[in-house]
Amino acid sequence: MMRFVYAAVAALMVFCCSPAKADEGMWTFHGFPLAKANAALKTSLDQAWLDRVRTATVRLSNCTGSFVSGEGLILTNHHCIEACLADLSSKEKSLVEEGFLAKTRDEEKKCETQVADVLTATEDITAKVNAATAGKAEAAANDIRKATLTQLESECEAATKLKCQTVTLYDGGQYWLYQYKRYTDLRIVFAPEAAIASFGGDPDNFQFPRWCLDMGVLRAYEDGKPAVPSSYLKFNFAGPAAGDPVFVSGHPGSTDRLLTVAQLEHERNDFLPQWLLRSSEVRGRLIQFGAENPTNERISADLLNSLENGIKVRRKQLDALHEDALFALKKAEQQTLQKKIAASPALKKEIGNPWHDIEMALDVEKGMLQPLTYIENGAGFQGRLVTFARTLVRGAGERDKPNGERFREYTDGALPRIEQQLGAALPIYPDIEALRLGAGLERMREWLGPDHEVVRKLMSKESPAGLAKRLVTETKLGDPAVRLALWKGGSKAIAESTDPFIVMARSIDPDARAIRKAYEDGVEAPIRSATERLAKARFAALGTSVYPDATFTLRLNWGTVQGWNENGKPVPPFTRLARAFERATGADPFRIPDSWLRVKDKLDMNTPFNLSTNSDIVGGNSGSALINAKGEIVGLLFDGNIHSISGSYWFDTEKNRAVAVHPAIIREALSKVYGADGLLAELGR
Amino acid sequence: MMRFVYAAVAALMVFCCSPAKADEGMWTFHGFPLAKANAALKTSLDQAWLDRVRTATVRLSNCTGSFVSGEGLILTNHHCIEACLADLSSKEKSLVEEGFLAKTRDEEKKCETQVADVLTATEDITAKVNAATAGKAEAAANDIRKATLTQLESECEAATKLKCQTVTLYDGGQYWLYQYKRYTDLRIVFAPEAAIASFGGDPDNFQFPRWCLDMGVLRAYEDGKPAVPSSYLKFNFAGPAAGDPVFVSGHPGSTDRLLTVAQLEHERNDFLPQWLLRSSEVRGRLIQFGAENPTNERISADLLNSLENGIKVRRKQLDALHEDALFALKKAEQQTLQKKIAASPALKKEIGNPWHDIEMALDVEKGMLQPLTYIENGAGFQGRLVTFARTLVRGAGERDKPNGERFREYTDGALPRIEQQLGAALPIYPDIEALRLGAGLERMREWLGPDHEVVRKLMSKESPAGLAKRLVTETKLGDPAVRLALWKGGSKAIAESTDPFIVMARSIDPDARAIRKAYEDGVEAPIRSATERLAKARFAALGTSVYPDATFTLRLNWGTVQGWNENGKPVPPFTRLARAFERATGADPFRIPDSWLRVKDKLDMNTPFNLSTNSDIVGGNSGSALINAKGEIVGLLFDGNIHSISGSYWFDTEKNRAVAVHPAIIREALSKVYGADGLLAELGR
Repeated sequence: MMRFVYAAVAALMVFCCSPAKADEGMWTFHGFPLAKANAALKTSLDQAWLDRVRTATVRLSNCTGSFVSGEGLILTNHHCIEACLADLSSKEKSLVEEGFLAKTRDEEKKCETQVADVLTATEDITAKVNAATAGKAEAAANDIRKATLTQLESECEAATKLKCQTVTLYDGGQYWLYQYKRYTDLRIVFAPEAAIASFGGDPDNFQFPRWCLDMGVLRAYEDGKPAVPSSYLKFNFAGPAAGDPVFVSGHPGSTDRLLTVAQLEHERNDFLPQWLLRSSEVRGRLIQFGAENPTNERISADLLNSLENGIKVRRKQLDALHEDALFALKKAEQQTLQKKIAASPALKKEIGNPWHDIEMALDVEKGMLQPLTYIENGAGFQGRLVTFARTLVRGAGERDKPNGERFREYTDGALPRIEQQLGAALPIYPDIEALRLGAGLERMREWLGPDHEVVRKLMSKESPAGLAKRLVTETKLGDPAVRLALWKGGSKAIAESTDPFIVMARSIDPDARAIRKAYEDGVEAPIRSATERLAKARFAALGTSVYPDATFTLRLNWGTVQGWNENGKPVPPFTRLARAFERATGADPFRIPDSWLRVKDKLDMNTPFNLSTNSDIVGGNSGSALINAKGEIVGLLFDGNIHSISGSYWFDTEKNRAVAVHPAIIREALSKVYGADGLLAELGR
Repeated sequence: MMRFVYAAVAALMVFCCSPAKADEGMWTFHGFPLAKANAALKTSLDQAWLDRVRTATVRLSNCTGSFVSGEGLILTNHHCIEACLADLSSKEKSLVEEGFLAKTRDEEKKCETQVADVLTATEDITAKVNAATAGKAEAAANDIRKATLTQLESECEAATKLKCQTVTLYDGGQYWLYQYKRYTDLRIVFAPEAAIASFGGDPDNFQFPRWCLDMGVLRAYEDGKPAVPSSYLKFNFAGPAAGDPVFVSGHPGSTDRLLTVAQLEHERNDFLPQWLLRSSEVRGRLIQFGAENPTNERISADLLNSLENGIKVRRKQLDALHEDALFALKKAEQQTLQKKIAASPALKKEIGNPWHDIEMALDVEKGMLQPLTYIENGAGFQGRLVTFARTLVRGAGERDKPNGERFREYTDGALPRIEQQLGAALPIYPDIEALRLGAGLERMREWLGPDHEVVRKLMSKESPAGLAKRLVTETKLGDPAVRLALWKGGSKAIAESTDPFIVMARSIDPDARAIRKAYEDGVEAPIRSATERLAKARFAALGTSVYPDATFTLRLNWGTVQGWNENGKPVPPFTRLARAFERATGADPFRIPDSWLRVKDKLDMNTPFNLSTNSDIVGGNSGSALINAKGEIVGLLFDGNIHSISGSYWFDTEKNRAVAVHPAIIREALSKVYGADGLLAELGR
């Protein structure tokens, strides 16, 4: 499952170095090279095709989806709605495990924290932003830039009543304002059992050949009625042939394809190893917790799946950063650009030496990395309850300020989404909360040292596990009404609260703010200044024949259905149902669910199951439809092969492959296994 | 606690590049630069001093110790005997937690798997080994070399009735035969509570300032009576002053100070990150297991401590290998030597290009690293029971061969120690066995892939956890009598056994042997050939003014009592008792035990507790006495500061410091806290 993994340290994005190779590229819709794509694929896409595909594509909170009926059906991956299935579950009954099918519209269940955004308009605001920051010193420019983005979003929302978000492309080379139609009432229509949705589990994750029915279906509602999208995509259940052109419209989350060499080294030497150490330990804690009894296993499954996916991504990213060839390429590209700058006195004067400036800023960051990671960025404060507490405390303080002066995650435009999340009636499992918080606090004490002032403040008389247990036991923040009351009560309610979690969050918030301020002024500001100059240098050298790094905003790419060569052996691009039964061991994660075993004789064992393409995708593209030149759905993208993970840093044309569910297995399963005839009819057959 | 960490992949040792800097160096007793040391320290050590110190030093199975009385008392660290304390504990009562004091000799309790070796004689056998392998191809030479070492050991043991072991110094530059007097009856006399022995636990581990009474006392017995050592060391309870010369006689386990650049990159890119990932997960599993109830916490404590120590070592080793300065130095040294070779046609002809040969061999290793790690090297088979099973199966097969053709760990000389371990009545905790084996099998499936033949063989119809649980539940190998019967029954008993663990070990042994064979011929043999040539080149360039890398054989070094500068602030070399009470939180691992709290008023709060020196030590030196120029004990070495971990790869003169228990706190504790007057009298006061 190619889950969209949020970066724990904000990824610094710069744009790609050299014109994209064939089939590489995460193009914006406003910068899509239509002529080039048509020439390469012998297709005849036009602007109407682009508009139809764009308005049929939705951005979920963590993934991509597509409208697939005129009554608001949204197709996405099982793993994109797994958190919602878990939130709708209880200690006794897991929808993740059992799957779900709404027989009628009344049975469709709301996902309390999900949203779906459709991109309706875009505007280039680069000139406005640059005018506001012109001539300012780095730290001041950093503050003014943010205030300007907030102001433009505010004005847009007031004028359009739409969701307006600014987007930074080319790491400051361009600023855009995107308008979205937002749906906040999303309900689950169908999900298969996890056993078949992620057959092979973590061992098979990011592998191909593969046999996963990683699909889920939502329905968007407006005013209590099924939404009517302005366009939607139809299935072509026969699917594509090898070599067919395919398109992916979706929201790649984050790539770092042109970090400077120093930034890549920072990823490799500090960020990735430390993240992996922390996460592997929590993985172990969760596995052992789940082994205690079936209830524990049930309530921790979604969290564990998500963590294991992240671990696989990060460890293959680390491997990619140990490839000599990658660093050789990055160094060569850097040197080429440096030479171009050196050759032009005017450019040299304007650009300066951004690589050196970044190195200096990274040295500053290195000196504050542990407090930044554990305190402000929350590696020490893991879990739902502590996150609620920190959001309530921080949010109260921020809302007392004018909109333009707040942290960007607490602007007026961001508040409804925060309130939606605070007010959602989600299950809180105290044992898991204590496990996660205890683990974070224990590592915080190890890495900051027992004599660090924040560690002394929290743990001079309590152990990490003891503190976590007490806070989780005594808090009332598990109740959404309590959270909403504190949210609505603002800074007065927060100041007066005696809830132990609020007390704790209050006590460390000034420390966390101080660290953030030092980071923003000493690291973020000079790096942004440097990357804006880098972007200018690259535009001067290469124009806009390059695509911007991924930013979890809408992109379109093209490719073809194809396998690859692994150790000299060809890997064909299609798998078939029969082999799934052969590989089953009977034990999770290689267990075929009873629903399939019962009807095994009726199934066509030759049905194509999954397929691979050379589409250039990363986490966040999960749930994207694979679209043919006619605009029909010929697959449901859910993963990449193991080589695709290096796509964070470069695109390996020979080996990077995307993995999708074949439409034929979707029909076979909905029809013969799940008896979902109504759903199938709405999907067009 | 600077535990001696066994390398999971055999470390490849080469000798140090350049003459040792002041205070650096792990000198053999037969190569100790006496004149140089005396000149540097203004001391007058002589051969008699060396002989006395050597024969008072013992090598334990995992650490160092010193004879400290004429009746066989051995001083070492608490963490060196913690495994023995755990083995003498039960689910109900933990000697690790509670400590132990034998009031009479009858109460002294035997450590079933401990041994103590005293080095009595050494012989240079380089010429004999080289004569045997001369002119042979790499793989054949590798086999013949091992057979020769086995033969020389055998002959020595037959002639002397002593324990004879060959030692490879300078990674093949020299071969030696060492003779030891071995004691196998070691009994525990005293251990404090873990809470004070390792006060500060993992957070304070490898830190200084420090407050740990990391001491333990054993007594060696011979023929049921206290052993009479040929020499022993006396305490100087006043301890040393800052700047005083100090010596450490002990057994540094392993250093890699002149691996080639390619070998260091292999450590950094593959071995260390993968070891850390695996171990961090097991750490999490053990922590959660211990959190389930007090019994679980008790029975897993020793294992967890050991693992956490290893994790701290490995992650700081990884940090060291990310220091640009380290790689710059290694590359420069490598280039200097390469130039010297290139300048001499004769040398060039003899040496060839060992760096390139090593790179080629590492490429071969990379291709087999996962099967090698998980199957032959046992990352997939963790736990006592599975290790017994694999030893029994492998050992039966090996004993059917002539002595010289066996794997070196199954030579006749090695068999008594194996039998001692198999026959020891150690507690086996099934839950921990299942946890460790299940974790190993699960990761084996992930890293080798579910379709690997060994994975299919073991887990085509069972989950990793299910298989582990079944084996642990059904086996009889927890009974030492069963193990000894299978051992004594040889290959016939093994072939006929239906014990599920034996069946499993039998089924994978051919796979494991095949991987080992491929590794030995394809990786080990060419690397040994290359490192022998590298050693020759370095002898030619630098003579023997350099010390060999550590090999867990006896070494002596010199230094002085001193602190260092941390971020511009001086760290003084002594700590005092008062501060330990100030830092206590009341919760583990910052809990001062009741025995100390009860007598707090009587304690001299100004008593020196721990001290730091610039001695060049690594894991394996744990338990070494810190000796002054008179040959008196002025400290008990137990750890290094955080910078000392980079000592695996180089010696950082400015910051690398060793950490020892001060003799004054030993006297204060034995006298006022533990009422160990008899012991104290035997120690000389």
